[in-house]
Amino acid sequence: MRGAVLHAPGDVRVEEREDPRILLPTDAVIRLSATCVCGSDLWPYRGIEKITGPSPMGHEYVGIVEEVGSDVRNVQPGQFVVGSFFASDNTCEICRAGYQSSCIHRELMGALGAQAEYLRVPLADGTLVATPDVPSDDLVPSVLAVSDVLGTGWFGAVAAEAGPGKTVAVVGDGAVGLLGVLAAKQLGADRIIAMSRHEPRQKLAIAYGATDIVSQRGDEGVARIKDLTNGLGAHSVIEAVGTQESMMQAIRSTRPGGHVGYVGVAHGVELPGEELFFSHVHLHGGPAPVRRFLPELIDLIWNRQIDPGMVYDLVLPLEQAAEGYKAMDERRAIKALLHP
Amino acid sequence: MRGAVLHAPGDVRVEEREDPRILLPTDAVIRLSATCVCGSDLWPYRGIEKITGPSPMGHEYVGIVEEVGSDVRNVQPGQFVVGSFFASDNTCEICRAGYQSSCIHRELMGALGAQAEYLRVPLADGTLVATPDVPSDDLVPSVLAVSDVLGTGWFGAVAAEAGPGKTVAVVGDGAVGLLGVLAAKQLGADRIIAMSRHEPRQKLAIAYGATDIVSQRGDEGVARIKDLTNGLGAHSVIEAVGTQESMMQAIRSTRPGGHVGYVGVAHGVELPGEELFFSHVHLHGGPAPVRRFLPELIDLIWNRQIDPGMVYDLVLPLEQAAEGYKAMDERRAIKALLHP
Repeated sequence: MRGAVLHAPGDVRVEEREDPRILLPTDAVIRLSATCVCGSDLWPYRGIEKITGPSPMGHEYVGIVEEVGSDVRNVQPGQFVVGSFFASDNTCEICRAGYQSSCIHRELMGALGAQAEYLRVPLADGTLVATPDVPSDDLVPSVLAVSDVLGTGWFGAVAAEAGPGKTVAVVGDGAVGLLGVLAAKQLGADRIIAMSRHEPRQKLAIAYGATDIVSQRGDEGVARIKDLTNGLGAHSVIEAVGTQESMMQAIRSTRPGGHVGYVGVAHGVELPGEELFFSHVHLHGGPAPVRRFLPELIDLIWNRQIDPGMVYDLVLPLEQAAEGYKAMDERRAIKALLHP
Repeated sequence: MRGAVLHAPGDVRVEEREDPRILLPTDAVIRLSATCVCGSDLWPYRGIEKITGPSPMGHEYVGIVEEVGSDVRNVQPGQFVVGSFFASDNTCEICRAGYQSSCIHRELMGALGAQAEYLRVPLADGTLVATPDVPSDDLVPSVLAVSDVLGTGWFGAVAAEAGPGKTVAVVGDGAVGLLGVLAAKQLGADRIIAMSRHEPRQKLAIAYGATDIVSQRGDEGVARIKDLTNGLGAHSVIEAVGTQESMMQAIRSTRPGGHVGYVGVAHGVELPGEELFFSHVHLHGGPAPVRRFLPELIDLIWNRQIDPGMVYDLVLPLEQAAEGYKAMDERRAIKALLHP
């Protein structure tokens, strides 16, 4: 089959890879309808995360079940399915508490390379959720978004305790941040402040429910959030970048007793203990337990209550994956969808 | 009046200080029945926190209202009162959300020096709570404990979401950690693991409701907590020390999705972002909003349901404050109560 492989920073190639097959009776193999490039794929693409050799890429996927192992009960060939970027058994104590991305048997889907024609999905019963039917083409991007970018933005909003009566600020205007805006809106937030300097992203933020745009960053951005919140800071702040600056901006934009939901994969972040102590914020985040939210999010999409697929502003054939990475790296595209 | 003043690391003297008086119409002046030495007083005593000159010490207090300013409505002369180590208006938006120790008008009581005969309490209406009557002598230590050490341990347990069905671990066997054990028990935790290497403290932990003692520290302590929790870690961990080692021990002892409540004043702590991200813990803490808990805790003490006063294993006249500091510094005493 064809699949995207990162050979070195900046060097993504679509090439022949071995066809995946059932290795364990709990596996499924799916034929991908769509996949995409994640902001977190840019970390190794930019050389910030080291790779040790040619690495199959991608961890976001929707498609048709091709084959299942002998122990698989919950999904069957022919069904259209979506899963998280972590495979999980969905039965262990950690999964049952809603933290499937820390499942005691979790497997990182990224290692399997979902930017490809076919994908092996371990722990299929715990990982995959079937949609009510095969979706029409226009729904596919939104269902694909559930796999990571919507699930992650949603977790950010849940971790930040966005809800009625709350002012929510969102740090980061990538696809996750934008879908954090959508999530905060769905969760009933009163006011949603999107932090963005880029006009097309500001527009999408507003389409998703942002009530205010703050274009300043760092200390100035914090000051602006304080101005908008009676000097106190936001109740809830979603951090969707993962740098030292964005984390500090999120913590400092939050009022005492407020909640920071951080979902940008942290890189080189060191949090100063004293400042955190006196900030009085709640801090929660990490790799989104997307599986927790799958049924609810599929439902919202199926009923056309939300349209997360709008974040894909670049659609390419899989063969042009390299251009998808490049466009996202240069911030010409918010998020690139790839059709195998 | 007489009061304790820190002149340099290790040099606490009880000397003549100016009598406090009403400066603002919202002030009260109280005659102290008892005060005490806090673990956090040891930071400047040990020279880890710098002082710029002779500093009046102490921020824990109970006593009789001597005089009130013209705007004070909630307390009156002759009443026995207790307050938090932060004065707060108890009416601002942050106070109403339960974070009185981040009140927009807060004042640090430590700057006023409660290890003394008299104390000026700013924002008396928002800060002080009267007990139903003047307590009998045997209740005074417990009421005094509410002022900080019990309120802080309690907040640690609340921030760690201790409760029914939970296994709670407590890092730190000082008075705050021990009262964190008491709080976890009161909040209904199933299992309470106290981390302590000191036999008298282990005994008090057990008296307060600890079901298990772990004497190992650092990585070994974490491994032991995992052993006791099916390999997963505790649901709730109270951190009551404030060092890099204790914070990491707390985070690593917590299961994914679990809660760390940290109340040890952080000194030189830097939290690694990546590890925190993948730990999936909730992190909350800071200076305890003791005022939130005052009515409930006074009630529990008044009805003799809890006996937090047991943490005072050294009782001295105020004039011997220096010996109280020394005994705590050398870990000969858990906590020293001072009688003016």
